Amino acid sequence: MAIQIPRGTQDILPGTVEKWQYIEAKAKEICELYNYKEIRTPIFESTELFLRGVGDTTDVVQKEMYTFEDRGGRSLTLRPEGTASVARSYVNNKMFGSPTQPTKLYYIGQMFRYERPQAGRFRQFVQFGIEALGSNDPSIDAEVIALAVELYKSLGLNNLKVVINSLGDKESRQAHRDALINHFQPRINEFCGDCQGRLEKNPLRILDCKKDRDHELMATAPSILDYLNEESKVYFDKVVAYLSTLGIQYEIDPNLVRGLDYYYHTAFEIMSTSEGFGAITTLCGGGRYNGLVQEIGGPETPGIGFALSIERLISAMEAENVKFPFEDSIDCYVVALGDKAKETAVKLLFDLRKAGIVAEKDYQDKKMKAQFKAADRLQAKYTIVFGDDELEKGVVSIKEMETGEQQEVAFEDAVAFITAKKSGER
Amino acid sequence: MAIQIPRGTQDILPGTVEKWQYIEAKAKEICELYNYKEIRTPIFESTELFLRGVGDTTDVVQKEMYTFEDRGGRSLTLRPEGTASVARSYVNNKMFGSPTQPTKLYYIGQMFRYERPQAGRFRQFVQFGIEALGSNDPSIDAEVIALAVELYKSLGLNNLKVVINSLGDKESRQAHRDALINHFQPRINEFCGDCQGRLEKNPLRILDCKKDRDHELMATAPSILDYLNEESKVYFDKVVAYLSTLGIQYEIDPNLVRGLDYYYHTAFEIMSTSEGFGAITTLCGGGRYNGLVQEIGGPETPGIGFALSIERLISAMEAENVKFPFEDSIDCYVVALGDKAKETAVKLLFDLRKAGIVAEKDYQDKKMKAQFKAADRLQAKYTIVFGDDELEKGVVSIKEMETGEQQEVAFEDAVAFITAKKSGER
Repeated sequence: MAIQIPRGTQDILPGTVEKWQYIEAKAKEICELYNYKEIRTPIFESTELFLRGVGDTTDVVQKEMYTFEDRGGRSLTLRPEGTASVARSYVNNKMFGSPTQPTKLYYIGQMFRYERPQAGRFRQFVQFGIEALGSNDPSIDAEVIALAVELYKSLGLNNLKVVINSLGDKESRQAHRDALINHFQPRINEFCGDCQGRLEKNPLRILDCKKDRDHELMATAPSILDYLNEESKVYFDKVVAYLSTLGIQYEIDPNLVRGLDYYYHTAFEIMSTSEGFGAITTLCGGGRYNGLVQEIGGPETPGIGFALSIERLISAMEAENVKFPFEDSIDCYVVALGDKAKETAVKLLFDLRKAGIVAEKDYQDKKMKAQFKAADRLQAKYTIVFGDDELEKGVVSIKEMETGEQQEVAFEDAVAFITAKKSGER
Repeated sequence: MAIQIPRGTQDILPGTVEKWQYIEAKAKEICELYNYKEIRTPIFESTELFLRGVGDTTDVVQKEMYTFEDRGGRSLTLRPEGTASVARSYVNNKMFGSPTQPTKLYYIGQMFRYERPQAGRFRQFVQFGIEALGSNDPSIDAEVIALAVELYKSLGLNNLKVVINSLGDKESRQAHRDALINHFQPRINEFCGDCQGRLEKNPLRILDCKKDRDHELMATAPSILDYLNEESKVYFDKVVAYLSTLGIQYEIDPNLVRGLDYYYHTAFEIMSTSEGFGAITTLCGGGRYNGLVQEIGGPETPGIGFALSIERLISAMEAENVKFPFEDSIDCYVVALGDKAKETAVKLLFDLRKAGIVAEKDYQDKKMKAQFKAADRLQAKYTIVFGDDELEKGVVSIKEMETGEQQEVAFEDAVAFITAKKSGER
């Protein structure tokens, strides 16, 4: 019996991995334009980081974390998301002391959640995310949203919807919280056990409940937007005004919430509106947080960021039939016949590659016909063919596969010949 | 108290991460030339994979693995190396059935070993490795070694030494094994407990022992090279002949061994000979294996590959004072003065970036002088300056930071102006 891959994980193989490479290159490119720098944090962290940084009442922490002890008895957890790790690194490395603020970072990395595997949902998945730490300027909220939108657009996605909301500042959140408790309390016994528990701890999360979403009190629940104080209103108005200026269309959804206490002001999601895309339409979620850095042991620092799943991005691209712009071909295949020729092919191949030519040969002791077949299969643009006889004469035959055109070339000129042909193609 | 990063791990931060990006891009580039394709396997695997694929008598498996149970009671292990995972994927995905053989793969990924952290040794580290599965041609052994050497050279490393050995085929290994037992048995009580255990199980590993390496029987131990049968000799001769043809200098070291049963024929290491590089001089290790794929549940398949640590590669580059060719500068900084100008800067910044210009502005409500300081700190090549007054006149002032040259340009021409300047630089 062959050993199987762990449940909920996947191998990314040649033929698919090129999509990942392409997306990551685009993400890196756009982050450079926006002056976000890459950060790489470890795959695992102290479990405490996520208890504090994600919140010990969340499903992620309560049910979905891969937590284990190392051989020294430390409790470690495979990271379920990226923001807590970035904040931890920001604190450990005293980035708050740098004169360049905000600190603008991006990451691309594997995340781990023990969820029921289903179409498009994995236990190991890859998130691309950005964080801007240290600025309270609404223009950075708009920048963060714009970066996500520009990335999706640059990848060919057109069916996008940006949904935005404000959770207000502390005062606004408190006023809204009181209103929610007043609204739900009289009939809370009609709600699920989870919601009953949430009423006092975090009533905002009742709005997120999947079981009770059709209860009539949901539709009439007080909207956060009616409880924003003046400052929060002004902030939110500026963010959406910037989005309009940048030509980014958005919808305001007062039910878009974040459960955690340290989320403030801007919250947003980007959805796919493609038909064939299925039930999970959220591509990207983000928002502004204050207090996270402090929770982890650093100075009070405002932050904003987003995270998106590459798996889901690829699904969205496939749903929109986006063509990935890469070709699976090689420059040159070396066909050698006879023992001496085969040995000589090793050096020729080496020299071709040294000259920047993607080149391949046979390693299976195949006959000529099978070697040509292999060259076709790899979509070689040129083949260099020679046997022991040609070797003695010091020549090779070079064939352009598309036209069938064939030409005899001195052995020592073969690399230069292909190089010239290749640069001519450009 | 701030939450700390787990022991033996590190954050890779801006300023350092560019080295990683550069090395990875080079590795990817050379793999493309050599027609190796990327594969990505999960961070964790069934523990059984490593028990079978790395060997349950090895230190790695016995002492160094991060093993834990998931919430479903499965025993999982963070991968300590890459080859077993690649072989598992090769089997699960039936790559042996593809007409294109050998299957040539590369990976770059985090690996995990619970070792005592020390200079240059981490519990989470990154390996780049390649595997060629399905060929028994000595030219692929040479290719694998050549790829590693070419990568190091392309990164500017010159102080390299290639050490190579043959472990022979099954028959040769058996003959050598018998000779080793005969050699050590009479005086095995003078050796450490580990070596006494190894005598019957795997006497080859006695040669690897750090405790007993000065024992006089070590120097006189029978050399594998004297026990190679004809076929193994021919194979080894061909591999080293190819290396010579490719201009790769090497040393033969009969004490270079691999402990595992399924290693055959070629074994090699690449060392740094730089002075300041410290005690651990091995940069890269690899060799030929047969039986691994079968061990994991697939058909008998020969394979050869290597793995190298990026952390150690960076140390070697630093020991040779290699200059990493990247600059930390931006194209343009937008300096805006006054409320209206600051708001307008948001759109200008967006348009600059959309045009492929790396651009930045202030998000801290800073005064003009501080904004110019920030532009200097980011090594901006140009600044675009405007206040509310200029905005009314519809102009901006563009300053080339190196020359100090300043110019008034119509607001709507600013992006085109910088674009032209930038393409002129090339």
